[in-house]
Amino acid sequence: MRQKLFAVMAATFALSACVNTSDNASASKPNTVRPKNIIMIVADGMGPAYTTAYRNFRDDPATPNVETVIFDDIFVGNASTYPAQVSGFVTDSAASATALASGVKSYNGAIGVDQNKTPVTSVLQRAKQLGLKTGIAVTSQIVHATPAAYVAHNESRQNYNQLADSFFDDRINGEFVADVMLGGGTNFFERDDRNVTSQFIDAGYAYVDTYDELATLPTGEKVLGLFAPVGLPWVLDDSRKNRLAYLTQHAIKHLANENGYFLLVEASQVDWAGHSNDIASAMNEMHDLNLTLEYLYNYVQTNPDTLVVLTADHSTGGLTIGANGDYRWDPKWLQNLQKSPAAIAEALSDSADPVSMVNAAFGFELTDEEASQVVALAQLASLKDKTEGIQTLLDVRTNTGWTTSGHTGVDVEVFAFGAASDLFHGQYDNTDIAKKLFSLLPAEQ
Amino acid sequence: MRQKLFAVMAATFALSACVNTSDNASASKPNTVRPKNIIMIVADGMGPAYTTAYRNFRDDPATPNVETVIFDDIFVGNASTYPAQVSGFVTDSAASATALASGVKSYNGAIGVDQNKTPVTSVLQRAKQLGLKTGIAVTSQIVHATPAAYVAHNESRQNYNQLADSFFDDRINGEFVADVMLGGGTNFFERDDRNVTSQFIDAGYAYVDTYDELATLPTGEKVLGLFAPVGLPWVLDDSRKNRLAYLTQHAIKHLANENGYFLLVEASQVDWAGHSNDIASAMNEMHDLNLTLEYLYNYVQTNPDTLVVLTADHSTGGLTIGANGDYRWDPKWLQNLQKSPAAIAEALSDSADPVSMVNAAFGFELTDEEASQVVALAQLASLKDKTEGIQTLLDVRTNTGWTTSGHTGVDVEVFAFGAASDLFHGQYDNTDIAKKLFSLLPAEQ
Repeated sequence: MRQKLFAVMAATFALSACVNTSDNASASKPNTVRPKNIIMIVADGMGPAYTTAYRNFRDDPATPNVETVIFDDIFVGNASTYPAQVSGFVTDSAASATALASGVKSYNGAIGVDQNKTPVTSVLQRAKQLGLKTGIAVTSQIVHATPAAYVAHNESRQNYNQLADSFFDDRINGEFVADVMLGGGTNFFERDDRNVTSQFIDAGYAYVDTYDELATLPTGEKVLGLFAPVGLPWVLDDSRKNRLAYLTQHAIKHLANENGYFLLVEASQVDWAGHSNDIASAMNEMHDLNLTLEYLYNYVQTNPDTLVVLTADHSTGGLTIGANGDYRWDPKWLQNLQKSPAAIAEALSDSADPVSMVNAAFGFELTDEEASQVVALAQLASLKDKTEGIQTLLDVRTNTGWTTSGHTGVDVEVFAFGAASDLFHGQYDNTDIAKKLFSLLPAEQ
Repeated sequence: MRQKLFAVMAATFALSACVNTSDNASASKPNTVRPKNIIMIVADGMGPAYTTAYRNFRDDPATPNVETVIFDDIFVGNASTYPAQVSGFVTDSAASATALASGVKSYNGAIGVDQNKTPVTSVLQRAKQLGLKTGIAVTSQIVHATPAAYVAHNESRQNYNQLADSFFDDRINGEFVADVMLGGGTNFFERDDRNVTSQFIDAGYAYVDTYDELATLPTGEKVLGLFAPVGLPWVLDDSRKNRLAYLTQHAIKHLANENGYFLLVEASQVDWAGHSNDIASAMNEMHDLNLTLEYLYNYVQTNPDTLVVLTADHSTGGLTIGANGDYRWDPKWLQNLQKSPAAIAEALSDSADPVSMVNAAFGFELTDEEASQVVALAQLASLKDKTEGIQTLLDVRTNTGWTTSGHTGVDVEVFAFGAASDLFHGQYDNTDIAKKLFSLLPAEQ
């Protein structure tokens, strides 16, 4: 009894001392309880400029200060992202996903294999070994690099069909690796040579291909949900503007159980927006992530035995807030967009009045000069050129900078809240994130 | 006695509990002791890409992992940098220096004044009011935006002569604002209309204009040290490759006293390298900062009553690690540079054999294509064009990206160690850094 009181006293002192040592919200409640549930979120391509840009994008101009967003409340650290030495200092999403999932540096392109192409165990696979339920909820195809590196093993991220096969063929203790799989990818699961979806259905999985159907499933199902042929539509063009938050919420509904669960969530298309240098889609994909975090932040209030960790795998596009010698960034021009630049470009060809169409889609009036640019864009044959033209109009309005259609090597931020989130403070390598998560899984039976 | 033991016990528990909550080096030793001495370091323009790039620049290719550098050991947080709303989302160095120095958002160009051009008190000025010694050690002219905002007040950063006058004319409790001032700027202090240097000498300041003279001064002097007409040379071209570390060390020698001191250190030319999109100078200016941090880290081991805080005021140039769709960054081409790109460009005109000269200055052999580019550069009339040409050769070799000759709005990292460094964990605004420092100064007498 005395020992117990002593421990309580010590814990109380520790709490007050730590409160004293920091005014950071997440640091002010030291939390080292081993979590029952772990939700790992990868915001693909979300380098530091994306989170600052998103805060500015959400700014209320009626107030003098820039309002904080949820990312500000949950920031805890920074992670380096470089791949195995053979691939230099700039990672792709496969090598970084393997690092984040398994704690092993590998070559660009590697899915859950080391430099010798030997499979390495991911924290999701380990969770399944230990009797937790497991799931993925992403906005790419579910066999895209990041989710694939948590679920499967392949020497190349390009082998989407093989990866879909692995999602079904691989077993851990006789069970499928993932109990819940939500995202896109029917092209890879429903093929002429093999229908993996049918195999999952025959094996007892509920299968849905619309968001509404997902909501009708009874709690606790094993679920395959494929809502698009490849990736989901841009959030600006999707029927659900909160699609990632929605998939996450439903994944949890099916995963929650007394032994706990591991869920991998990916805001996949922040990266795709970066690759196409599309600031409008980047900010709106970030907003879907923001809604997901707000949902999870509330979830953890009532489920404090859950840990949520968010990081990026790398930055994409060389996004800069301001460019061309001008000390200016104007995200207000992105706040009323009705469609993605790609969708606007696609609509250009069929539009009798392209200028009015673009005015409506942008949510602001084009200048005469911009209007004549839009008329010229409508004449172009290439959809890619049209899309780049629309993106450039927004880049000029906002004064957004880009340096590449690929990735860059800057360290990425780490965010965490919930059980044991204090483990994630400071600067470390992306492989350390996997190592920390492994250390939080239950001991082997 | 019981109370005291109780406190010791509590502290011990707190320590062990906090060690448990984090494996971050600086977080593992909670430190909330009010510091006697405060050293605030501003690395002008050092956005997140600069610290990652510097780690890569220092990488030993003989080992599989990228070695950590001192920045990794002392990272604690992130700060937003936006200026007062009137200036948008991208700050200049004056508004951000005013925010960092005084905790007040102001317009771009403001030196220690608020939006109404009313003077605001800096933490350095407050320290002087409270009886601490005060100093600045920078690689720009000492009246440049960052140091000026700690020492003086002016509606415009451009008023260098007025600022030099203020350095002499302003008094706090009858004393000069800064006891030690080390950097560049004879052009602004030794003018036809007024010789501020002579006035300082007459008022009892030791004056030096060479690094060696600085070393000869007896400890505890009031010192004005101006080592260049405007800013110091690029570190690549300076006689001392550790000039900032050297100035910092000597500033401390004169400032150390029983009442404590406040020292502002600025790695001013990281920003200047960014403005001119000069990756070679950026990495070498970062190295001088690194040497300064290594010196201070050792200093704090023997002077644990000292707090060191480092941040940037903004990022510059839109630097990206990798560019142009290529997943590659090759800093090895920067590791043997003998001169700055500006100095190489200057030497081009007088060189009988420009290719050999550049080979020697770069520390590697030019390709045939590069050699013919150098021959063409040597013919150009404009030194600026020549310099850009040399910089572009290195950008292509390293695959470095830039988006602007100005600043960008990305959040910047915060680093801290020593007494009360735990106050700086997490995400906050740059004005909060000043507020934290104010809270750590002694209470008014």
